[in-house]
Amino acid sequence: MIKTAIVGASGYTGLELVKLISNHPEASLEAVTSNSYQGKSFTDIFPSMRGFESLICTSFDAKALSGKVDVVFLALPHKVSMAFAPELIDQGIKVIDLSADFRFDDAKAYEAVYQPHTALNLLEESVYGLCELNREQIRNARIIGNPGCYPTSILMPLVPLLKEKLIFPQGLISDSKSGVSGAGRSLSLTTHFCEVNESFGPYKVGNHRHTPEINEVLTKAAGETVSLTFVPHLVPVIRGMVSTIYAQICEGVDEKQIRNALNKWYKNEPFIRILPPDKFPNMSHIKGTNCCDIGFYLEAESGRLILVSAIDNLLKGAAGQAVQNMNIMFSIDEKAGLDWVQTPL
Amino acid sequence: MIKTAIVGASGYTGLELVKLISNHPEASLEAVTSNSYQGKSFTDIFPSMRGFESLICTSFDAKALSGKVDVVFLALPHKVSMAFAPELIDQGIKVIDLSADFRFDDAKAYEAVYQPHTALNLLEESVYGLCELNREQIRNARIIGNPGCYPTSILMPLVPLLKEKLIFPQGLISDSKSGVSGAGRSLSLTTHFCEVNESFGPYKVGNHRHTPEINEVLTKAAGETVSLTFVPHLVPVIRGMVSTIYAQICEGVDEKQIRNALNKWYKNEPFIRILPPDKFPNMSHIKGTNCCDIGFYLEAESGRLILVSAIDNLLKGAAGQAVQNMNIMFSIDEKAGLDWVQTPL
Amino acid sequence: MIKTAIVGASGYTGLELVKLISNHPEASLEAVTSNSYQGKSFTDIFPSMRGFESLICTSFDAKALSGKVDVVFLALPHKVSMAFAPELIDQGIKVIDLSADFRFDDAKAYEAVYQPHTALNLLEESVYGLCELNREQIRNARIIGNPGCYPTSILMPLVPLLKEKLIFPQGLISDSKSGVSGAGRSLSLTTHFCEVNESFGPYKVGNHRHTPEINEVLTKAAGETVSLTFVPHLVPVIRGMVSTIYAQICEGVDEKQIRNALNKWYKNEPFIRILPPDKFPNMSHIKGTNCCDIGFYLEAESGRLILVSAIDNLLKGAAGQAVQNMNIMFSIDEKAGLDWVQTPL
Amino acid sequence: MIKTAIVGASGYTGLELVKLISNHPEASLEAVTSNSYQGKSFTDIFPSMRGFESLICTSFDAKALSGKVDVVFLALPHKVSMAFAPELIDQGIKVIDLSADFRFDDAKAYEAVYQPHTALNLLEESVYGLCELNREQIRNARIIGNPGCYPTSILMPLVPLLKEKLIFPQGLISDSKSGVSGAGRSLSLTTHFCEVNESFGPYKVGNHRHTPEINEVLTKAAGETVSLTFVPHLVPVIRGMVSTIYAQICEGVDEKQIRNALNKWYKNEPFIRILPPDKFPNMSHIKGTNCCDIGFYLEAESGRLILVSAIDNLLKGAAGQAVQNMNIMFSIDEKAGLDWVQTPL
Repeated sequence: MIKTAIVGASGYTGLELVKLISNHPEASLEAVTSNSYQGKSFTDIFPSMRGFESLICTSFDAKALSGKVDVVFLALPHKVSMAFAPELIDQGIKVIDLSADFRFDDAKAYEAVYQPHTALNLLEESVYGLCELNREQIRNARIIGNPGCYPTSILMPLVPLLKEKLIFPQGLISDSKSGVSGAGRSLSLTTHFCEVNESFGPYKVGNHRHTPEINEVLTKAAGETVSLTFVPHLVPVIRGMVSTIYAQICEGVDEKQIRNALNKWYKNEPFIRILPPDKFPNMSHIKGTNCCDIGFYLEAESGRLILVSAIDNLLKGAAGQAVQNMNIMFSIDEKAGLDWVQTPL
Repeated sequence: MIKTAIVGASGYTGLELVKLISNHPEASLEAVTSNSYQGKSFTDIFPSMRGFESLICTSFDAKALSGKVDVVFLALPHKVSMAFAPELIDQGIKVIDLSADFRFDDAKAYEAVYQPHTALNLLEESVYGLCELNREQIRNARIIGNPGCYPTSILMPLVPLLKEKLIFPQGLISDSKSGVSGAGRSLSLTTHFCEVNESFGPYKVGNHRHTPEINEVLTKAAGETVSLTFVPHLVPVIRGMVSTIYAQICEGVDEKQIRNALNKWYKNEPFIRILPPDKFPNMSHIKGTNCCDIGFYLEAESGRLILVSAIDNLLKGAAGQAVQNMNIMFSIDEKAGLDWVQTPL
Repeated sequence: MIKTAIVGASGYTGLELVKLISNHPEASLEAVTSNSYQGKSFTDIFPSMRGFESLICTSFDAKALSGKVDVVFLALPHKVSMAFAPELIDQGIKVIDLSADFRFDDAKAYEAVYQPHTALNLLEESVYGLCELNREQIRNARIIGNPGCYPTSILMPLVPLLKEKLIFPQGLISDSKSGVSGAGRSLSLTTHFCEVNESFGPYKVGNHRHTPEINEVLTKAAGETVSLTFVPHLVPVIRGMVSTIYAQICEGVDEKQIRNALNKWYKNEPFIRILPPDKFPNMSHIKGTNCCDIGFYLEAESGRLILVSAIDNLLKGAAGQAVQNMNIMFSIDEKAGLDWVQTPL
Repeated sequence: MIKTAIVGASGYTGLELVKLISNHPEASLEAVTSNSYQGKSFTDIFPSMRGFESLICTSFDAKALSGKVDVVFLALPHKVSMAFAPELIDQGIKVIDLSADFRFDDAKAYEAVYQPHTALNLLEESVYGLCELNREQIRNARIIGNPGCYPTSILMPLVPLLKEKLIFPQGLISDSKSGVSGAGRSLSLTTHFCEVNESFGPYKVGNHRHTPEINEVLTKAAGETVSLTFVPHLVPVIRGMVSTIYAQICEGVDEKQIRNALNKWYKNEPFIRILPPDKFPNMSHIKGTNCCDIGFYLEAESGRLILVSAIDNLLKGAAGQAVQNMNIMFSIDEKAGLDWVQTPL
């Protein structure tokens, strides 16, 4: 039994982690912490979580967790994570961080969009937790930077095609769409029901903080500098993410080569589903699962490749991938706790 | 041209008032005030209001409005209204107040659910602005207490039937359902998209502040004390309100008498629509209009009458009825600015 | 391992059954049939069901199922079920029927709202599958009439209170609200997105076919004829059901007695949750679970009891209760396959 | 007073036309026809249209309309329109056709995606009714091919920039998103509430019939063959359309030139709103209006221009533009009947 704690459990990612660990056959939940809801029960925080009345949020105390847990999930805002992680590592506790603090290889890239990094050694040591692509390094990691939701949806289809030299690294575009839970549970006009329902539009055009995270991984995959054009949009649904990605194929590449490459990389991956020709991903197909669906269409005349990926932003895009990372780190079945048939309609 | 100002224009009711007055053929908008958005343009506050960049919110100043406007709409929280209204009346400006502050006849009933009343003289003078029922008094009023949305939806069908002695005043129940805009634009977990969407349930069971407002009017209509059982529910739609009301008919009353009574009271009313047998109101039928739809079914064996009413909570339930009150007070066509064919699908 | 087949698997209830059985630790899915989708894979019918490409719908053939399955779920329209059930019983296969065909004790009550019954012997033998209330009879049944969703939500709170003589059997009202999946997957203007979204209203006022089903059970519980006033409404959500029920308490009954009675009946029931004072059920709290939440408020002055119940119409209101019935019939843990922590947000 | 008739009034576009003409100060509605609802009142067809009980749908009869109406709106399926239009023109009645039948210059382009054209003379005569770009020809036209919704949203921002030689004609991409009403009122699983709500995804990737319509106009504007990559997506809202368009700027072009060009073309257009820097269109901002909002961002390093446009698919994308065309054809104020302040929240 893997003993876990969830730090910052009162947000939507924290909620998903609590549910996933509660359903997990080989992990137990030893503690949940929340700054704003200290002393409150989980049912008080989330009325839908009836049955969790005795799960009480405490304050964060790395020493108190020492010896009690094997791994801690940090579901905290950027900056707070890098203050907490070192103490946990010092206690011999593994860390899976869901903020941006440990996702970058290049501290300068992080600092350009966030703030000065205060745990540079750990940043250097940390592994980017894109499970299917970095599995071997994850296996031995003490600290994981769990990928952002947008990066996951964009990197899954693009990395193999760049590595296999089937598409040009230049001119890539991702037109991405996210459900509202991606904005978190904190209050803002942008998540007010009357402002979101029956609406749709782009936001943060030209300056979303996920862009450098994506570019760092794409650049490594391509072996040359990649600068993706990224436009996120908000969809009036609770959960789900779709990225429609436009790329130019390299000379002579055909549909079959694209399909072969994706199959080669993902055929045996339990959570990656390459859709048959003429089928395309949809938020409703992956909602409530840890899957990433990928479909594509090649415009023969123009050489334009249209890739579409879909994930549940809270699962494969956050809590689900975090648990998958835990499964890899502790050498148990990677699908444990993640392989039910989805419940929503 | 009736010159108007809207005080507290940055909420949803204020927004509707700005739109209604802007479309009104015989009224002009001279000023809008907002405490929280002073100095901001209306387009900054509501991005959908492109074209209103030059409409700037000022702070409230009764003297500055003197001589400049004929009537002021107060779209303010309870308690703030009763502080502002006396100054306006002193300047010879008529007041249509959309808070609860001037809705009650009985100051004690008000004070039991709100707070001590600080403008008792005005409260005594004020007229309850349920247009179809109090038209004559509205005509000569200096100050109107504009009815709440729930009371409007419940009183419209019940008052005539109580007055005509067709239903028992005891044992009345209203199971009411409101869209989310009724909760206003201020931030709260209860209006967060992810908490509201795909949800439905009752709230404030047993203690909603609209109950005493409803009971006061019903008691007057019945000539004896009425105590309605009222259960409000939240529906995941932006706007609309439906009340399903249960009453017991008096001995010997039949369906025809019910229909005749409703027709007698409302047949010539442009905004009240009595539906034919077997047709029932729906939020989508009145959205964007100032109408109140009423349908009913009489369970012959049990003598149970099921009345269903629907209004747009922001129009007939707030801003629309306020403009209708203005039209009556200034002796212009009661339908002016309110009689378009609805735009939404 | 309990071997099962699902007949009529291409509707929403069929889909839920396929998911529940696929996740069930002690049951296997041996066959699915569909009249309209014969020869099609389950993934073709439901694109969200990727991974079920090899589950092919066949036509119904009772003999072919003989010896192959222990129990069959009939997710068929009324009338079709009573044609199929006898053949299955003849083959020694247990039947859990989700239509109305085997829910009634009184064939005349059935025939008054449906059609002539063609399997009267089986109707007499069949057990009404309201698990918590009829557990002992279910245990030994060969054929179960699985309750309707509205009846389940209304009977769970009312039956104990009637049996304990705490409320009057007369004057009961249920104002019920259902998500759209209750209308099924067949095409109709009433389930067209543009007609349902941003709408809300009652339907089938005065003549919903679930009323006689409810009254039959209530009458038995009360020991006298009960005639509930029932008004269903459609809510623009996919799944969920809330019933707000109004009853008059018997002389001298207080809140504590109501709570004690509900606790006495349901305290040890894993799927029935009696909410603490001031907490009320919500569709979003039970979505994706087999739970029935019950909350209540007693209006002391009027003696009016307000009961609120919530279920997932497709689970406790259909497929979930059907699996719970199967678990009871086969003497396995009643929670098997139904006790995960809900997935939706 | 312009006398109008609406042929095919029972779909969503027909409904919008009925509402627009009913609200129009200088047009009257003389007849509505519907094949499927002949003899039915408009209120029977659309329950929200209370007050239209006496508007009865007749069958189409060009001769009966002769002398009675000045202009007919054809809100019919492709193919049916080209059968009806010639008879009307023969009777001296002007025609505004909302199908694709009269949108193309090149009959072969039409026939490649639809069917053989049976009114080639009229096709040659017809004017493409993109009001802001073809106003002079519209003024004198007898027959208008009213543009599709996707084409309108894409052509409005692109045509000026191509004409001004500020962007490359090659490599254009439009990632477009539409509300569900675009699919019409006929029944289909793809518009079933439970399949659409809480879903999002692309459809008809690589073969949407609007692509040739778009390319024909772009090609003319650019003076060379343009082949846009077009991917439509379905958003779970009733109405609205957003196109996010990606183009490469010509050497040396800067943001100011883009803004100047858009202002030059659209500054005095009442229905085209060029948003200020850092502001982007949203479906909720144009819902219920005839406006087209356009915002943009220039990625300086890559020379990638991101254009975002939004329209109401049923108004500027269909019925609204049709009425605007009528206003132009009959030399009345182009804004007549279209210039209210939007009603929805």
